[in-house]
Amino acid sequence: MSDASLPAPTRTYSYLGPRGTFTERALAQVPEAVGQTWRPVQNLGEALDDVISGRSDAAMIAIENSIDGGVSVAQDALATVPGLRVIGEYLVPVSFDLVARRGTKLENIRVLNAHPVAYAQSRELLDVRLPGHGHIPAASNVAAAADLLETGHADAAVAPPGITDHYDLEVLLSDIGSNKNAVTRFLLVSTTRVIPARTGADKTSLIAELPGNESGALLTMLEQFSARGVNMSMIESRPVGDEMGRYRFIIDAEGHILDERMAEALLGLRRSLARLTFLGSYPAADRSAITVDPRFSDTVFLDAREWLRDILGADSRP
Amino acid sequence: MSDASLPAPTRTYSYLGPRGTFTERALAQVPEAVGQTWRPVQNLGEALDDVISGRSDAAMIAIENSIDGGVSVAQDALATVPGLRVIGEYLVPVSFDLVARRGTKLENIRVLNAHPVAYAQSRELLDVRLPGHGHIPAASNVAAAADLLETGHADAAVAPPGITDHYDLEVLLSDIGSNKNAVTRFLLVSTTRVIPARTGADKTSLIAELPGNESGALLTMLEQFSARGVNMSMIESRPVGDEMGRYRFIIDAEGHILDERMAEALLGLRRSLARLTFLGSYPAADRSAITVDPRFSDTVFLDAREWLRDILGADSRP
Amino acid sequence: MSDASLPAPTRTYSYLGPRGTFTERALAQVPEAVGQTWRPVQNLGEALDDVISGRSDAAMIAIENSIDGGVSVAQDALATVPGLRVIGEYLVPVSFDLVARRGTKLENIRVLNAHPVAYAQSRELLDVRLPGHGHIPAASNVAAAADLLETGHADAAVAPPGITDHYDLEVLLSDIGSNKNAVTRFLLVSTTRVIPARTGADKTSLIAELPGNESGALLTMLEQFSARGVNMSMIESRPVGDEMGRYRFIIDAEGHILDERMAEALLGLRRSLARLTFLGSYPAADRSAITVDPRFSDTVFLDAREWLRDILGADSRP
Amino acid sequence: MSDASLPAPTRTYSYLGPRGTFTERALAQVPEAVGQTWRPVQNLGEALDDVISGRSDAAMIAIENSIDGGVSVAQDALATVPGLRVIGEYLVPVSFDLVARRGTKLENIRVLNAHPVAYAQSRELLDVRLPGHGHIPAASNVAAAADLLETGHADAAVAPPGITDHYDLEVLLSDIGSNKNAVTRFLLVSTTRVIPARTGADKTSLIAELPGNESGALLTMLEQFSARGVNMSMIESRPVGDEMGRYRFIIDAEGHILDERMAEALLGLRRSLARLTFLGSYPAADRSAITVDPRFSDTVFLDAREWLRDILGADSRP
Repeated sequence: MSDASLPAPTRTYSYLGPRGTFTERALAQVPEAVGQTWRPVQNLGEALDDVISGRSDAAMIAIENSIDGGVSVAQDALATVPGLRVIGEYLVPVSFDLVARRGTKLENIRVLNAHPVAYAQSRELLDVRLPGHGHIPAASNVAAAADLLETGHADAAVAPPGITDHYDLEVLLSDIGSNKNAVTRFLLVSTTRVIPARTGADKTSLIAELPGNESGALLTMLEQFSARGVNMSMIESRPVGDEMGRYRFIIDAEGHILDERMAEALLGLRRSLARLTFLGSYPAADRSAITVDPRFSDTVFLDAREWLRDILGADSRP
Repeated sequence: MSDASLPAPTRTYSYLGPRGTFTERALAQVPEAVGQTWRPVQNLGEALDDVISGRSDAAMIAIENSIDGGVSVAQDALATVPGLRVIGEYLVPVSFDLVARRGTKLENIRVLNAHPVAYAQSRELLDVRLPGHGHIPAASNVAAAADLLETGHADAAVAPPGITDHYDLEVLLSDIGSNKNAVTRFLLVSTTRVIPARTGADKTSLIAELPGNESGALLTMLEQFSARGVNMSMIESRPVGDEMGRYRFIIDAEGHILDERMAEALLGLRRSLARLTFLGSYPAADRSAITVDPRFSDTVFLDAREWLRDILGADSRP
Repeated sequence: MSDASLPAPTRTYSYLGPRGTFTERALAQVPEAVGQTWRPVQNLGEALDDVISGRSDAAMIAIENSIDGGVSVAQDALATVPGLRVIGEYLVPVSFDLVARRGTKLENIRVLNAHPVAYAQSRELLDVRLPGHGHIPAASNVAAAADLLETGHADAAVAPPGITDHYDLEVLLSDIGSNKNAVTRFLLVSTTRVIPARTGADKTSLIAELPGNESGALLTMLEQFSARGVNMSMIESRPVGDEMGRYRFIIDAEGHILDERMAEALLGLRRSLARLTFLGSYPAADRSAITVDPRFSDTVFLDAREWLRDILGADSRP
Repeated sequence: MSDASLPAPTRTYSYLGPRGTFTERALAQVPEAVGQTWRPVQNLGEALDDVISGRSDAAMIAIENSIDGGVSVAQDALATVPGLRVIGEYLVPVSFDLVARRGTKLENIRVLNAHPVAYAQSRELLDVRLPGHGHIPAASNVAAAADLLETGHADAAVAPPGITDHYDLEVLLSDIGSNKNAVTRFLLVSTTRVIPARTGADKTSLIAELPGNESGALLTMLEQFSARGVNMSMIESRPVGDEMGRYRFIIDAEGHILDERMAEALLGLRRSLARLTFLGSYPAADRSAITVDPRFSDTVFLDAREWLRDILGADSRP
């Protein structure tokens, strides 16, 4: 009996469910996830727990401008849960529809289910079209819709497009969000130690903790990047939580750890910070190649090392 | 008839109510507010609206490690609502009690009302003492308690100490938070243009928007502080919101705008940033005097200007 | 008898003589010196002494790439003689001729008079055309030529072009210097406190003494310039002389003390250095307008001050 | 016949002669030079030529605060003569005596032989003791003395202590220099590629040429040192000579090329400069151990590399 007859071992991907969330859409962008097991979970903690425990091979989590869940919570989780690695980045355009049970008329809507963030982003139009409406906060965008068929406390819900593929509801108003360019950024996280290959359009994610709370320490940290021509696409501060005034920084830098300038910047950071966590190097979602100043190309770094080796000759450093 | 017989005009202070919130405790620390009108409001937006519209003279808002409301929301509001000025800073220790209707026994508690942040901070102990309990999110800590007497959906609530002064409830467990040093920082905001007097233990709050999203711009911003010996006690980044990758920074710097080094730092920031908002100089909550490096004392700045004036003589700049 | 009948009071200019030196040529470039008294002196010390004592109104001195005298000596003099001000800068192309007494033939030349610097710059060609010649060092280029008519120890001399206008000598070889672009830079120094008007193509000369001999102090000094977009056209280090390892820096920066960015840089330097001497702002010899980065234009500085004044309002700094 | 019967091959050391110069005293400090061939030469050019051509194994040259010859000339030579390496540093205290032919009385001295630098350093006292004396410039301090016995043009000479060991002269006044702490710094240069062993009290000499003449380039250069905690004990600028405004810097940095922080600084310099010449790492003359900030110890650098290697694992850089 040949191995071919055995079912192929499948990989499992956790994501914030249920079906129809923006997180699920992000996961749909991952080629390797097609045809594998997708495991919907209730919240970020569960998703990360799946990965750490080995129940899942990877989890898709919202990390920035999230509407499915909190950015800060995800950032804090990456900073504090040991062993996580980011292996991919995905962008999902965010828009909202107003949905209701079949047959509902707009003029009869009194109360809305909506996730607070979705509600905030849709409020401008809702105040015009549904003056005097009430709002019941929902735990997620999909839950807002699903609840219409369960409790009936609300007459309509703010939900992601496509929700009607999963629930027997009707779209009353489309694209009701105020920011037409809204996008949520997702990360695919895993515990693998294998770093995705260098593509020339990569990002490196880091968690940096300063040695003290002086301005000088932050300046020194930033100089590690600028001195090697490494640009940051994101820097966010988060309180460490032990005492007021202590911060950690969540940083996305442009480039791959196998880029010489990035490797040197990481060495400099490691030497000068109280704590540095490497979260991963991975292809950037926008796939746009990074323009590297010729002064910081790999060649320049390799030439300098060659020059030093020549001088050291037999005395060379181990 | 003397003026003394007229009622003194009173000032109005808005705060996140109802009675019993941590915000109310912060307001209780303001000597000028004693005996004046205290106006409880539902949320941050209402509080700021009171100030802007002139309904209130000032509003107390939670700004950091808040449990009464969101930090990010408050920071974004300071950054985007024009005309606000910070005139005071206050710290309130944060702890939680588990409260219930009179006669409730711990072993009968199935479902809890709790503000999500308070719940998160208390969960460790609750999971031990109330295994398998359910959680209903509340809009505020006080609302969590108040709801016990209204709907009866929950059996107990996580609430701030002293809640039993206002509601007919009983404390079942005291001080159930996991962080015994938890503190919330509050700011008193107003629209006055008068800057509180210099005390030697002051803070200056700023909103800074970088000219671009390059690392260099952030470095230049930080150098404006470090070059004048000004320390930052807080720096937080917040997305500007128009496109991903653009940030504004909420900064608290040590010192007063009337300190020469701070004034020079502000000038440097104003010159190099896309946008700089001065939110105010005010006494720091901890009242601890700032140690100024002699190289950055007022005298050094004044001497240098005197030196330049001497050289310029009759040609002196206006 | 009217004042008009009195001879106009004349100004006196000292310069390294005798007639025919490169320094005299530099003085010839000064419009205000035309028709005034020119006073030839023996050396730099005498020239500066004339200025300090009031015997002369100004002195022309070689400051860089000098062949009439030492650069270092002039730099040290500017750094240590109090009360001097630079009021002009002039460039003189440097070339050399081989001159001899009338009737001398090239093949009969055995021994040459030459100032060591002029000799060094001409040696390449002299070694080819006069193999095996001897060299007697002269005190100046003109003295080298003059001595031919006095002592007769040498057969020829390396001298500046035009020397035959002043001495009865003959040019045997023209333009014998190896560097065809050689130029000497001269400064016109005075004790006036009046700063020459701003032209848009100015230089500011400074003497800076670091507070210690650490690398950090030099870095801080340079940051005062770069933080205000001020470029340096020259920076030379000179030992202070009291102990090994202590340096002062002679700096020429692009711009005028009435340029806002320069004034701010000077204030920053004054605050951070052990000692700062302002030697003057004056039109640059090359008259080429300085390109100022818009971020450092006068407008930017004035706007920032206006912004700060508005905030301070009645509390405004004097 | 055994090898032992052959005369041991000797090493040759060039130095600025004749016998009795300060340079000879510096050479006397070199243990390896004892009992070897000492070759006196006329000037710096000859000394370096001996080394480059292989006539000598090493040459002792004055490099700073020289009185035997010019500093600038020596610095320029190190910067432009290819193939030189510094292998040692030596300090010689500088003082002067007034010497004369036997029987000469102080009151009969009319004219002095003196090297210009020695004359300058002794002038204060000579003007008091020998008012109205004349001065004949000499090519070196020893030549000043030797000439007394040859031409007799002068009555006395300013000469280094100990000159009477070599010449039949008498000391009239001792220690006549105005700077009692005067010291000359000497370097032992060679063409060997072997770098002297690390002692913990080392210096590294470099020649750095900036990529352009902007302030920014100099700042970037200095940051390479400060970012790795490397202090400079000397930095001197010298014009490159091709056009006005272009400089090279002669730098002595504290530490050895085998110190990790120095190696990293050299790599950074090599990457950012137009040209970098490594002149050598060698024991500092004062033998005082360098205090290294723990943040820049070898361990810190090695740990960071180990950390990076762990992350890269099998993907490790070659």
